[in-house]
Amino acid sequence: MEGRKIRGIWGNKSRGRMHLLLVSVTLNLVLLSGLLYERGRRAFSEEKEQVLPGFCPATEVKKMGSLEVESRISSGRGWTEEGRVQKLSSDSVIINLDHGDPTMFESFWRKTGEKSTIIIPGWEKMSYFSDVRNICWFLEPEFAEEVKELHKLVGNAETEGRHIIVGTGSTQLYQAALFALSPSDAPEPMNVVSATPYYSSYPSVTDFLKSGLYKWAGDAYTFDRDGPYIELVTSPNNPDGFARQPVVNREGGKTIYDLAYYWPQYASITAPADHDLMLFTVSKSTGHAGTRIGWALVKDPEVARRMTKYVELNTIGVSKDSQLRAAKILRAVRGGYEGEQESGDGETLKFFDFGRLLMAERWDRLRDAVRKNPIFSLPEFPTAYCNFAGESGTSHPAFAWLKCEAEHVDDCESFLRSNRILTRSGRQFGGDSRYVRVSMVDRDETFDVLIDRLNIIR
Amino acid sequence: MEGRKIRGIWGNKSRGRMHLLLVSVTLNLVLLSGLLYERGRRAFSEEKEQVLPGFCPATEVKKMGSLEVESRISSGRGWTEEGRVQKLSSDSVIINLDHGDPTMFESFWRKTGEKSTIIIPGWEKMSYFSDVRNICWFLEPEFAEEVKELHKLVGNAETEGRHIIVGTGSTQLYQAALFALSPSDAPEPMNVVSATPYYSSYPSVTDFLKSGLYKWAGDAYTFDRDGPYIELVTSPNNPDGFARQPVVNREGGKTIYDLAYYWPQYASITAPADHDLMLFTVSKSTGHAGTRIGWALVKDPEVARRMTKYVELNTIGVSKDSQLRAAKILRAVRGGYEGEQESGDGETLKFFDFGRLLMAERWDRLRDAVRKNPIFSLPEFPTAYCNFAGESGTSHPAFAWLKCEAEHVDDCESFLRSNRILTRSGRQFGGDSRYVRVSMVDRDETFDVLIDRLNIIR
Repeated sequence: MEGRKIRGIWGNKSRGRMHLLLVSVTLNLVLLSGLLYERGRRAFSEEKEQVLPGFCPATEVKKMGSLEVESRISSGRGWTEEGRVQKLSSDSVIINLDHGDPTMFESFWRKTGEKSTIIIPGWEKMSYFSDVRNICWFLEPEFAEEVKELHKLVGNAETEGRHIIVGTGSTQLYQAALFALSPSDAPEPMNVVSATPYYSSYPSVTDFLKSGLYKWAGDAYTFDRDGPYIELVTSPNNPDGFARQPVVNREGGKTIYDLAYYWPQYASITAPADHDLMLFTVSKSTGHAGTRIGWALVKDPEVARRMTKYVELNTIGVSKDSQLRAAKILRAVRGGYEGEQESGDGETLKFFDFGRLLMAERWDRLRDAVRKNPIFSLPEFPTAYCNFAGESGTSHPAFAWLKCEAEHVDDCESFLRSNRILTRSGRQFGGDSRYVRVSMVDRDETFDVLIDRLNIIR
Repeated sequence: MEGRKIRGIWGNKSRGRMHLLLVSVTLNLVLLSGLLYERGRRAFSEEKEQVLPGFCPATEVKKMGSLEVESRISSGRGWTEEGRVQKLSSDSVIINLDHGDPTMFESFWRKTGEKSTIIIPGWEKMSYFSDVRNICWFLEPEFAEEVKELHKLVGNAETEGRHIIVGTGSTQLYQAALFALSPSDAPEPMNVVSATPYYSSYPSVTDFLKSGLYKWAGDAYTFDRDGPYIELVTSPNNPDGFARQPVVNREGGKTIYDLAYYWPQYASITAPADHDLMLFTVSKSTGHAGTRIGWALVKDPEVARRMTKYVELNTIGVSKDSQLRAAKILRAVRGGYEGEQESGDGETLKFFDFGRLLMAERWDRLRDAVRKNPIFSLPEFPTAYCNFAGESGTSHPAFAWLKCEAEHVDDCESFLRSNRILTRSGRQFGGDSRYVRVSMVDRDETFDVLIDRLNIIR
């Protein structure tokens, strides 16, 4: 039934085409999978060096053979190497759900046409400067305007009395916030903590330059050092999807709220967030990870000034082209709710409705598979009233925090890898190796293979 | 005569329009100048805090009132505040030549039409990944291809046997290079040096995070500490325009070549640069500063891998939109030399020819003004054969390294500021306060005011 709702968004005409596409995709999947497996195996055996963990550690880059093929699969093209087409069986394909590449949303944006298309002539936006009257002098005013409008539409954050700082993704803004919140003349670096399980990139992003201003101090639950500190609160949390509050709550503490996933497709919007420093990103809100645009809402003008200074010294501002594109995309999202956004079939395209239905459908399928398989379990989320949707519902996080319950499985990541599913180990989140984080936002084809695989694994 | 050549590039039809535009611009200049001066004065008197120097320190942001108006002037629009039009005298306008905003090239790109226009549909380039087989997994293949083609056309750098790493401007790549060339386990941070006068942002960009991996160690000429070091060689040099070589030349030294200005409009291309690590940027090559795209050519795959890691941890890659735009722009430059790029008047548009003529004309006018005024002097550059242009010529750097020769002037920056010309003091480049760096790449209107002013100052 959820499936039918999803198709309803596309209208009747595209159903036939979708079936053809699925057949083509499946055929290619079969053809490609063996080659991929061989490539993946070779990549793993070549693995030697130890590199800093991060968004995409070397191990992961080497796993990318599979990702590459996923994109070839989903674009419906075949695979030849030196002209040969290889015949392979589909159960040997490796699927990569290690990172949260939000390609799931591509199919929505394919329907939106010129409303989401950006055109930039060669002479436009050549200057370093966007708005010299603004603290954030490289912020494009039309992007700032759309950020405010989108928060107003969704009701997920207060923008009144806030400075907007744009960044090259929210990762850059996280570092800008650390720089802004750490005194430049302290004898010791500021301690940075977050409650486990925390986003796996935070420790290495905090420490990779061995800054004298701040340093990673681990789990907020066990943090007992004196003095000032910065606590990172990711809510809904990456990796486990739960709503979060600060846990240290001591004098001299400062808090960075990473609200990347506080959007209607992932969680109930219960109230506008109203904190001093909040981070968002188009990667997770609209799925445009390649655009590398994040934004911070910042109350204190001095913090806003220092964050701007960070981005200035780090990258002399943020791509104007991407800011214009992000503005257009956010405008298109808004347009869908103002009756402006239509598909070729004359249907109104509502981005968050699409996202909510698709995420709900995927979670239903995942829970169904996990329920039937005693090896695995999933967290349960409370029901809450979503002001945006006007109805009660549960969370459908961008990641599944999957637990291996079976006695014989100590290391869930290795276990799944042996079943050709790449995920991120709970250890990388400061947690337990019996957990893994599984991306729920990849393309349909990849998700389908995941479900098939989970139904079989014993 | 140079002037005639420049107009020749635009063709005859546009001359009348240009004259009209100039009249309109002059009129607006007169109207706006007084208001600007008042705004500028207010901004200076509000100046209190001390902030890290950098590309655009707070002092500079506060000077920006003038910049803002410059753009209004050059776009030919009038100025009203609460509906009033103010009448003011043109000699009180403040011109800002402190930074190297390459808006000079805008007039060229306005002629290029769809050949330089980028169109990106909402569903394109949503993934984090561009090319998973490449060490630099976020590098768009078509951008990499155009980088290679452009270097081949210009003959200014070897690309064979190099890895291309894309960055959010070359500033990010400079930091990526520091990270890549500094061992992660050394007891002391790596010393980073550059011969004075060096680019004013290098010290603060190196030190702002108080990294334990590397630290700014000042002038390469006086560097006498033992152990490994990194030397930065900017050639042609920012601020003074001279060609440069490493000066320390000791065992254990590594060199980063910043070749941002090694393009035909600024210098003679005498041979393809052939170093281990070279940095370039579209800001200076084509004038697209707002696009924030730089690239590194890197010989050692391990250095390329670590630079990629830096960009991954810092910003999870680089805007795909800007990479696509940069690819299109570079392609359009190349097209001009393959007979493809035409203006509306049917004339072939050759970017570097435009740049060379305009820079030569500006330098002629500047030298003429300076020759007639005993207060100032300029460096002289040797003549060299440019392989690209097929003729001998001298350098026409993007900045003028102007010296105040008058006895009564100790601080050239303050002296020029009192004459309402904002420049960057020689002190900021590790040098002498009798020098200033003056941007030569701003819009025509700003440059005209500079020349008028230099003719009058006594």
